[in-house]
Amino acid sequence: MSDAQGLAKYSEAMRQEIAQARELVAQLHAQLPRYELVVWTAGNVSQRVRNPEVADGSADVFVIKPSGVAYEELTAESMVVCTLDGELIDGTRAPSSDTAAHAYTYQHLAHVGGVVHTHSTYATAWAARGEEIPCVLTMMADEFGGPIPVGPFAIIGDDSIGRGIVQTLRESRSPAVLMQNHGPFTIGKDARSAVKAAVMCEEVARTVHISRQLGDSVPMRSEDIDALYARYQNVYGQ
Amino acid sequence: MSDAQGLAKYSEAMRQEIAQARELVAQLHAQLPRYELVVWTAGNVSQRVRNPEVADGSADVFVIKPSGVAYEELTAESMVVCTLDGELIDGTRAPSSDTAAHAYTYQHLAHVGGVVHTHSTYATAWAARGEEIPCVLTMMADEFGGPIPVGPFAIIGDDSIGRGIVQTLRESRSPAVLMQNHGPFTIGKDARSAVKAAVMCEEVARTVHISRQLGDSVPMRSEDIDALYARYQNVYGQ
Amino acid sequence: MSDAQGLAKYSEAMRQEIAQARELVAQLHAQLPRYELVVWTAGNVSQRVRNPEVADGSADVFVIKPSGVAYEELTAESMVVCTLDGELIDGTRAPSSDTAAHAYTYQHLAHVGGVVHTHSTYATAWAARGEEIPCVLTMMADEFGGPIPVGPFAIIGDDSIGRGIVQTLRESRSPAVLMQNHGPFTIGKDARSAVKAAVMCEEVARTVHISRQLGDSVPMRSEDIDALYARYQNVYGQ
Amino acid sequence: MSDAQGLAKYSEAMRQEIAQARELVAQLHAQLPRYELVVWTAGNVSQRVRNPEVADGSADVFVIKPSGVAYEELTAESMVVCTLDGELIDGTRAPSSDTAAHAYTYQHLAHVGGVVHTHSTYATAWAARGEEIPCVLTMMADEFGGPIPVGPFAIIGDDSIGRGIVQTLRESRSPAVLMQNHGPFTIGKDARSAVKAAVMCEEVARTVHISRQLGDSVPMRSEDIDALYARYQNVYGQ
Repeated sequence: MSDAQGLAKYSEAMRQEIAQARELVAQLHAQLPRYELVVWTAGNVSQRVRNPEVADGSADVFVIKPSGVAYEELTAESMVVCTLDGELIDGTRAPSSDTAAHAYTYQHLAHVGGVVHTHSTYATAWAARGEEIPCVLTMMADEFGGPIPVGPFAIIGDDSIGRGIVQTLRESRSPAVLMQNHGPFTIGKDARSAVKAAVMCEEVARTVHISRQLGDSVPMRSEDIDALYARYQNVYGQ
Repeated sequence: MSDAQGLAKYSEAMRQEIAQARELVAQLHAQLPRYELVVWTAGNVSQRVRNPEVADGSADVFVIKPSGVAYEELTAESMVVCTLDGELIDGTRAPSSDTAAHAYTYQHLAHVGGVVHTHSTYATAWAARGEEIPCVLTMMADEFGGPIPVGPFAIIGDDSIGRGIVQTLRESRSPAVLMQNHGPFTIGKDARSAVKAAVMCEEVARTVHISRQLGDSVPMRSEDIDALYARYQNVYGQ
Repeated sequence: MSDAQGLAKYSEAMRQEIAQARELVAQLHAQLPRYELVVWTAGNVSQRVRNPEVADGSADVFVIKPSGVAYEELTAESMVVCTLDGELIDGTRAPSSDTAAHAYTYQHLAHVGGVVHTHSTYATAWAARGEEIPCVLTMMADEFGGPIPVGPFAIIGDDSIGRGIVQTLRESRSPAVLMQNHGPFTIGKDARSAVKAAVMCEEVARTVHISRQLGDSVPMRSEDIDALYARYQNVYGQ
Repeated sequence: MSDAQGLAKYSEAMRQEIAQARELVAQLHAQLPRYELVVWTAGNVSQRVRNPEVADGSADVFVIKPSGVAYEELTAESMVVCTLDGELIDGTRAPSSDTAAHAYTYQHLAHVGGVVHTHSTYATAWAARGEEIPCVLTMMADEFGGPIPVGPFAIIGDDSIGRGIVQTLRESRSPAVLMQNHGPFTIGKDARSAVKAAVMCEEVARTVHISRQLGDSVPMRSEDIDALYARYQNVYGQ
C-alpha cells in the first residue's frame, strides 16, 4: 500500500521529525473523544512536517490517522505519512478518507501546520443549517476574532472539500470553518493548535446555540472583538 | 430454565463459535453505557451464530443478554443462547425481555448477524413523536443512506415488535428503525456493526435535533446521499 | 448529637441489619453522581430497617446520609440512623436536612423501604413549571405506569414536604413525585429500587422533554400503558 | 518575572499559609473540569491569604493559576502569588489573564476569601443574552437567595471587569455574577466556597434554562426565598 520509495528520500533529521509527529498526532487523537468531539472512528488530526530542502513547502509531508480504526487502537506506528498530493508514502494502513482535504489545505495555506476534522455535535448542527456562528462571547472574540464561517456543500471524491475550506478560511480570521451539512475543519500553526481550535469551536457552538434557544444574544461591537482578538493572539499564555 | 437438550446437538465447531460470541456480546454490552445509550439495565445486544448444517438459516442460534442484570455484572458466562424461535437452549438466567424481537429479526432477515436495542435519548425522542430523522448530514448519508424510518407502535407479548422492525427495515437502506413511543432497534452483519449503527443512530438523532431547534436544516440532494452511501459502504475503512 | 439510648434498645439481629443498611446506603449514594443526578453534596438516599417487635412499623428506623458531606467522603460509618419521628439515634454527624421528609414518608407509607431525593436536572425542570411528565414512552409505562405527578410547593421546616410526597404518591402508581420548584422524590421496596426509580425518572424526564422540544408526542392508550405496567411489574427480571 | 522582594517581607506564618493555599488552589482547579465548567485552559480559582500585620486587608495577597497552562499540569508549585494590586510577587510563570479582576474583587470586598471565574456553558448562555437567572428553584433560594444578576459588558485591559463584578455583587445576596457576553464570576469566604458557588451557578443556570424551554416557570414568593436562604446559610451542613 505504501509508496515504494517510502521515506528513504528524506533527510535523517526530517525522518526524526516525522517519527515525533507520529507520536504527537497519536496522542492528540485521544483529545477528540476526551472532549466529546467524536464517536466511534470519526474525526482526524494531522500535522505537517516541513521539508527544509524545498523552500516553497511543496515537498512537505503530513502525518494523519488511518481510516476506520478505533480510537483506543491508535498508536504512533499506526499513523500514516502522505505527501501534499495526498499520496501515501509511509504506513501499513489506508489513510483517513479525509486525507485529500487535509492535503489540499496544507498545499494552499503555507502557514498551516495542523488540521483537524470532526463532526462535533453543536458545530455540525450549525453546519446543517448552513448558518455561521455569530461572535457574541468574549472567549469567541479571543479565539476566532469574529464569527465562525460556513463553507460550501462539497462531497468526498475530488478536491471540492479542500477548496471550500481554503477559500472560506482565506476570507476570515477564524481558524475554524463549518462545512455545510458536514462538520467543522480547524487549522493551526501545529496539530495541537488545531485541536484547541476544534475544542473551542464546539464550545462556542454549544454556548451560542443554548443562548439563542431563549432569545437573542446581545451583539458585540467590532472594535471590542478586535481588541480582544489582538490581545489574546499576542499576549496570552506563557 | 434451559432446554434439556442444551447445546449437545450442535457440532463442536459451532459450540466454539457460540463460546466466542458469548465473549464478544458481553464485551459489546460495555459499549452501550460508554456511549451513553442506556441507563441501568436497559438495552441489549445479540449476535447470530450460523448453523452450517441447515442452509436456510432456520437452525441458527443467537447469543443475547439476560434480563434485568446490571451492566457491570455482565460476563460471557451470564449470556444466554436461544433458537430463532426464541427458545432458551443454554444459560442459567432468563433471556432479555426483548428476545422475541431479536429472534423474529434473525428469522426473517437472513443477512442480519447482529441486533441491538436501546432507549437512547435523542433517537427515542424522535420515536415518541413518531417522526423519521431526515438525512441532512454527510455522516448520516454515509451510514444510513437516507432518513432513519419510524416503525409502528407495538408492545411486548407477541411478535408485533419483530414484525414492525422487519417490515420497516425491508423498505429502507437504514440499519436503524425507531419503534414509535419505544426506541431504536439496529441491525448489522454482526453484533459489532449493529452496535456501531446504534451509536451513529443516537449521534445523528442528537445532531439533527439540535440543528432543528434553531431553524430548518439545508436539505441534501438524493444523488449526493446516494454517492456518499455507495462510497462509504464499499470503500471506507481498512 | 446522638440520642443517649443509641441502638442499645434494639435486638442484635436488628443492629446487624442496620450495619448492613449503612453499607448499602453508602454504596448507593455513589450511583447518584454516576448517573449525574446530583452535584456537590445535594441528594440523599435512605433505607428503612424494620423492627420485627412492633408490627405496625412505628418502631422502624432508617439509615440516611449526613448533611453537607462530599460524595467521596461518604462511608458506611458516616451514615446516620433515625427513628420514624426523624430523631437521630446513631451517628456522629447531623442527618441530611431532608430527613424529616424521608421520616414522614416511611411513617405514612408502610410498604416503602427506600426513599431517594435529588435535584436531577430534567425532572427538576418539569417541577419548576409545575407540570407532570406525560406517559408517552413504553419504558415509562413499564416503570411508572402512567404520568409522573407533581406535588405541592412546600418548604423545609415542618412536615409539609413529607405530606405533599405522601398525598401525591397515594393517588398514583408512579414511584416518583416532582415536588414543585424543588425536585423529585422517589420510593421503592428498598433503597436500590428507589435509586432505580430516581435514575429512570430523570431518564424519562429528559427524553420526553427533548421529544417535546420539536413538537407533540404521540399519546399512548391507557390500555397499552396498563398492559406494559402489569407485565413489567410482575414478569421482568430474574 | 517575579518581584525582586518575593515573599521575604512576609512572616514565616504567612509564608506557610501561602504554601497551603498553593496546595488548595491547585487541588480546587481539578474540580472545574470534573464538573464540566471549563475546557482546555479556561477558568481560574484564587484564594486570599490575609496579612495579619495590616488590619485593613490592603497588604493581603492571593494565590492564583498561571496563564494558559493545561489542567493536568497544574501543581502547587506552578501557582503564582500576587498582591491586591495584581503585582506578581512569587512564581515562575505569568499569572492568569484574569488576575486584575480577582485582585480588584479582593481589594474592594474585604469579606471575600476566594474567587472563581469560568465560562461554564449555561451560565455563559444567560450572560450572552444579558439576562439574569430568575429564582424559581428551592436550591437556588438556598444558595443564591434570589436571582443571579448580570454585570456590565467589560473587556480585559483595565479594572472595568473588577468594577463590574464588585458593583453588581454589592447589590445582591448572590455569590455569582454573570458578566455580559463573558461568563460567571463567583465569590466565597474561601476558594472552596467560591468553587461551590461556580458549580451551583452552572447547575441552576442549566435547570432553569431547560425548564424555560417548554414554558414559564412557577414564580416563588420572596418570603419563601428569604426563609430558605436564611435557613441554608445558618443551619445547613455539619
